[in-house]
Amino acid sequence: MIYDLIIIGAGPGGYSAALNASKNGLKTLLIEKNKIGGICLNEGCIPTKTLLYSAKIFDNIQNGEKYGITAENIKLDHERILARKNKVIKTSLMGIKTSLQKNNVTYLNSSAKIIKDENGNLKVATVADNMTYSSKNIIIATGSSPILPKIKGVHEMYAQGFLLTSKEILEIPKPPKSLAIIGSGAVGLEMASYFSSAGAEVTVIEMLPKICGNLDKDLSDILLKNLRKKGINFFLGSKLLEVKNNSIIYEENGEAKELNCEKVLISIGRSANISNLGLEEAGIVFEKNAIAINEFCETNIKGVYAIGDVNGKLMLAHTAYREADVCINNILGKPDKIDYTNIPSVIYTNSEVASVGETEESAKQKAYDCEAINISMRYSGRYLAENEGGDGICKVIIDKSSRKVLGVHMVANYATEIIYGAEIMVQNKTEIDSCKKIVFPHPSVSEIIREALLEIKL
Amino acid sequence: MIYDLIIIGAGPGGYSAALNASKNGLKTLLIEKNKIGGICLNEGCIPTKTLLYSAKIFDNIQNGEKYGITAENIKLDHERILARKNKVIKTSLMGIKTSLQKNNVTYLNSSAKIIKDENGNLKVATVADNMTYSSKNIIIATGSSPILPKIKGVHEMYAQGFLLTSKEILEIPKPPKSLAIIGSGAVGLEMASYFSSAGAEVTVIEMLPKICGNLDKDLSDILLKNLRKKGINFFLGSKLLEVKNNSIIYEENGEAKELNCEKVLISIGRSANISNLGLEEAGIVFEKNAIAINEFCETNIKGVYAIGDVNGKLMLAHTAYREADVCINNILGKPDKIDYTNIPSVIYTNSEVASVGETEESAKQKAYDCEAINISMRYSGRYLAENEGGDGICKVIIDKSSRKVLGVHMVANYATEIIYGAEIMVQNKTEIDSCKKIVFPHPSVSEIIREALLEIKL
Repeated sequence: MIYDLIIIGAGPGGYSAALNASKNGLKTLLIEKNKIGGICLNEGCIPTKTLLYSAKIFDNIQNGEKYGITAENIKLDHERILARKNKVIKTSLMGIKTSLQKNNVTYLNSSAKIIKDENGNLKVATVADNMTYSSKNIIIATGSSPILPKIKGVHEMYAQGFLLTSKEILEIPKPPKSLAIIGSGAVGLEMASYFSSAGAEVTVIEMLPKICGNLDKDLSDILLKNLRKKGINFFLGSKLLEVKNNSIIYEENGEAKELNCEKVLISIGRSANISNLGLEEAGIVFEKNAIAINEFCETNIKGVYAIGDVNGKLMLAHTAYREADVCINNILGKPDKIDYTNIPSVIYTNSEVASVGETEESAKQKAYDCEAINISMRYSGRYLAENEGGDGICKVIIDKSSRKVLGVHMVANYATEIIYGAEIMVQNKTEIDSCKKIVFPHPSVSEIIREALLEIKL
Repeated sequence: MIYDLIIIGAGPGGYSAALNASKNGLKTLLIEKNKIGGICLNEGCIPTKTLLYSAKIFDNIQNGEKYGITAENIKLDHERILARKNKVIKTSLMGIKTSLQKNNVTYLNSSAKIIKDENGNLKVATVADNMTYSSKNIIIATGSSPILPKIKGVHEMYAQGFLLTSKEILEIPKPPKSLAIIGSGAVGLEMASYFSSAGAEVTVIEMLPKICGNLDKDLSDILLKNLRKKGINFFLGSKLLEVKNNSIIYEENGEAKELNCEKVLISIGRSANISNLGLEEAGIVFEKNAIAINEFCETNIKGVYAIGDVNGKLMLAHTAYREADVCINNILGKPDKIDYTNIPSVIYTNSEVASVGETEESAKQKAYDCEAINISMRYSGRYLAENEGGDGICKVIIDKSSRKVLGVHMVANYATEIIYGAEIMVQNKTEIDSCKKIVFPHPSVSEIIREALLEIKL
């Protein structure tokens, strides 16, 4: 059986590539060794959002008095939330399975390896059915795994269940009384936010002097302030030195300190799943532990693509979706290129954070003659109506010479839903005067973008 | 004193025109006979959103058990919500006042009339200071008032306080036990939604066979179902015949029926405020009780403009903002035209409704060869995570021949924040293939647009 396309890995990149390919008439085989939906559906995006929404309801009613709503004996039932999370995963999974079937994608639950046959052609060998499959094109979409750093005690305490990754933390039956979180990226902060609502004493240890990596400094400062107000402890510029049995040792200002905790979550990043794929034998180049690709998402071997976390580019589900489309378009002979410049990034803390394009820092580094407009979210009537005492901001970065919008950054609820529109402006290199003609519904949080544009002096 | 611009009315259209004009160096006089902010800030958009957000917190905790959150003795304190509403209005008002001052707009609290001087030039006469002001340009932005129809008992019962308009209902100190609402437009439905949460037995009387005027039929059907599920009664195809002392008489299927209620809200539309402005004396043409304008928002008299509700076009605050910009741009010699085709409309019920561009019905009427993609919101992982049992939809209307997006329509929370991005697509006449390259954050409700686009067969 010769396929037009074999996809190894059925996460967001893999299954969406399969659907797109099949809809366009390509005979497609989709192979997954674990679960359809990958990390995103089973241990990432979707389950965390289920938890965070429950926490948001809980937080809102806790703060309800400000809005004229009171209640007594308010409880968050973690077990029930987990059960619901599993139900939501199941529903989504059913949806994807139905789509795959409806679109005639052949699905195989197996691990797989790329091999070279006697003529030097690449094939895919699968373990479950002990078969070898031929295909004109191969997409590698095997995802990534949480990084467990080589720090004293990390591996042992992971084995013993004291230290958890983003996978295991979503399964613990009871919130820990105290939780240390190593790393303040989106995963660390979202889990800090949830478990703090669920009653845990949460402490975040971050190596850098600010939280949330590349996020614009003004935004990360506000987010930090808000999370601290929620009762989460942060130690910045702090390094994990050792994980012991019921505590961690970390360095702060050159001093080693001990923090007792019931559980530790390590969330310092992910590494691409490139082992046991036969990459070296097949001659597929990988760099920095990720498969190297060009702008068509193609590896050094013609017809072999790598999308999603395994190429180590942005490690976001929505990036994988776009890369999947780029691959399939190119396979179908419709030239398409991936552009990572304006892919939005989002954090689902309460308040949410969303960001697209250049930050003030990155624009200056790139020597843009830019203006940064930084306005309070309180210019939005809806924000005022819904955020008693809120201190969100919207930052818009403008290139003065071209009068174009370079970036938009927001801390405020709904920001994660608003950002794609800003992305369109930034990606299309829209001039300010055109942006000003967009009619934002009133009252909305989105109209903060209009307000920011009105502040531009040039 | 000769001004560059005099604006009569300081609602959203008026005050934003004043700010824009002043920032651009025009000597501007802003005149308002009631309150700065107009209906929108004082009796409309902002106060209702404050109420609705409190109701949303209340509804969410009432339904919290589905999400693992429980509470007892949950109460909505209407009086406190009103107090907070007034505080939010005050804060917004302060913001606008500060902006006006900072930008050197001269403000006068007075009623005003346009008069012709002995040379035939138009001037503005104000009552408060008994002065006459000259100006190169005049913008009329006097807004609108709720319509009180000539139906038996309406005027009498309004005078007695049994029948209320959208203005008075926001001031009643206690939610009525029962409330009849005449008209199922945005105002009627939002108030139905709030007062139902606040404990009132709400009945909506609508003359048409569907709720919510021009809203796409599929969306209005879902909204109706959801509001009925919330416990709101609807009588469609029903006409108000008479308002009595503690009841209303309405016609349903040709039969007159009586409904007892504690209060009646009439929300069947608004009429432009064109009285006592001196329009006839000044020779300014008005049609259908609204001031006639061209695409520059200019009346038949050069240099005299009419924006916002008073021109009777769309009667939405965000339309007024855009019209204000169009006026000022034209006054500044930067040609600009108003385009009403793709102005979004939004309803802040729970779930929210948002709509932009052609509906399936309107596209067919205009003889487009169109495809309507109608998909369940449950294709969005975030929607699934946050809407247990939700039945929202997204409808995308495509022109088959040009492969362009004609309209986007949604029932789901966040829709009101998402719609402006869809507006950009529709307004820019973006081709489907370009739309597909937009990277929607995952998981988000906004990515339902991507899902819909993927369903297109052409």
